[in-house]
Amino acid sequence: METYLDCIPCLLNHSLKAARAVTDDEDIHRQVLNAMAAMIPQLSLGLKPPEIAQEAYRLIRQITGHSDPFHKVKAEANADALALYPRLVKIVVDAEDPLLTACKLAIAGNSIDLGPEFGQVTMESLVETALGSHIDSRDYQRFRNSIASSYRIIYIGDNTGEIVFDRLLIEQLHKVKKLDVVFVVRERPVINDATRDDALDVGMDKVARIISSGSDAPAAILSQCSREMVELFHSVDMIIAKGQGNYEALDEETGNIFFLLRAKCSIIADQFGVKIGDAVLKQKKSASQAGNTV
Amino acid sequence: METYLDCIPCLLNHSLKAARAVTDDEDIHRQVLNAMAAMIPQLSLGLKPPEIAQEAYRLIRQITGHSDPFHKVKAEANADALALYPRLVKIVVDAEDPLLTACKLAIAGNSIDLGPEFGQVTMESLVETALGSHIDSRDYQRFRNSIASSYRIIYIGDNTGEIVFDRLLIEQLHKVKKLDVVFVVRERPVINDATRDDALDVGMDKVARIISSGSDAPAAILSQCSREMVELFHSVDMIIAKGQGNYEALDEETGNIFFLLRAKCSIIADQFGVKIGDAVLKQKKSASQAGNTV
Repeated sequence: METYLDCIPCLLNHSLKAARAVTDDEDIHRQVLNAMAAMIPQLSLGLKPPEIAQEAYRLIRQITGHSDPFHKVKAEANADALALYPRLVKIVVDAEDPLLTACKLAIAGNSIDLGPEFGQVTMESLVETALGSHIDSRDYQRFRNSIASSYRIIYIGDNTGEIVFDRLLIEQLHKVKKLDVVFVVRERPVINDATRDDALDVGMDKVARIISSGSDAPAAILSQCSREMVELFHSVDMIIAKGQGNYEALDEETGNIFFLLRAKCSIIADQFGVKIGDAVLKQKKSASQAGNTV
Repeated sequence: METYLDCIPCLLNHSLKAARAVTDDEDIHRQVLNAMAAMIPQLSLGLKPPEIAQEAYRLIRQITGHSDPFHKVKAEANADALALYPRLVKIVVDAEDPLLTACKLAIAGNSIDLGPEFGQVTMESLVETALGSHIDSRDYQRFRNSIASSYRIIYIGDNTGEIVFDRLLIEQLHKVKKLDVVFVVRERPVINDATRDDALDVGMDKVARIISSGSDAPAAILSQCSREMVELFHSVDMIIAKGQGNYEALDEETGNIFFLLRAKCSIIADQFGVKIGDAVLKQKKSASQAGNTV
């Protein structure tokens, strides 16, 4: 997806909030805003939004002098989600359709973000959001059928904390079908996105093989990814991509891709025909498909 | 009120929306964003938000080549509100407390804006919003008492369309007490703010004497206002200031000021202890006052 002009003020707002999450120093907040503003006139709208966010976070790292400014936020998100994990397992096991419930929880977990709404979400509210969310039954059926007919899957993660919910969903995938699952993390810390260490923290290695995307972009932008990642992307049976960033990075790629995310801005909500805050589980439309896919 | 860092992304977003309201030419939208971005590093946070908006709209006028880019939007807003006027009169006359209902309608009329939410409001929804809104009874009592003890009032207007609702409220003020009311408009077109011509369009001269603020700022910034306006401001018994911009311009001035507005961003909502979208009718706290005033 290309960048919309609307993404520019949003990114500026996001950068300010991110700077505030790193430090209380208002001079630094202002420096971040100024540096972002200086980028705007040169910004190519041909870039994908996460490519611009990548530049923004490079600036934030540079200005704040922290290579992993969200280390503490990330550790807390993983710890909070892990504390909830036994309850999440029980909710899924007791559900009428455990896979559907695990999907809803994984999508609600995408609310753990430093994005448009960050800081507003409690783990308790996530469970409530998940159980009250709606996924189109045809989309879910396509997802379930795709799992049943797949052997090799890559699951492209997004945020720390959220990955506990992803682990829960991967456990359910294994119950539907014996699968080879690869979980993709970011190469280096960027925003609160999960890296290999974060994934190991939540025991992701017990349910999937962990690989890095090869890039510090806050999304799997294939042109920046490692050869291993790109080859896997083009050879597996199914790709599960979490979060808006991965949708923005992969919406024009070819493959059996399912996007699982919460719509966090009007541009994305419009593209999926939902409201801001709604759950999205949607298969990327391929040339041979029609109907209710994107 | 000084400018917060949060105002900067918001202003950028607002400028983009304003540029879109003027033209469909995406190159111009981009030019406006770029010009605004170029302003950011030099921007003094000591300026009031409407002073920055004033600069932004000068840029928009310059880039789009229109001296009154919102002429059509304004004419439509006045026409739509005038079409509703007979119904508004009936709602007020039939109300248990006509002055309170007229206050609520005048505040709801402040939703007609090119600000954070513009384009989302229909005249029908305004009436519904007004009748469902809440004003603190002590604030209202102070307002009512102040009217009863005043002889000379200035009423500082805000947006075109909204001024029909203001006229309705001024009619009710005259029913409480025989008053000398001066209605203040902007000197020249800025955003969708009301000028003398716009006020004449809705018959404001039948209920008040119309004067210009003497400035093209989208708010009554006293340091930019005409001598007549400033002298009136300091000599009248009561000042009614409509909208966020006038609050941002006047919150540090001395006088018996009542702010009537809808809270359109979290900064203002926080200052009044309300939620975004809520109605605000609040007296400015003076040195001799205490309690529920700002």
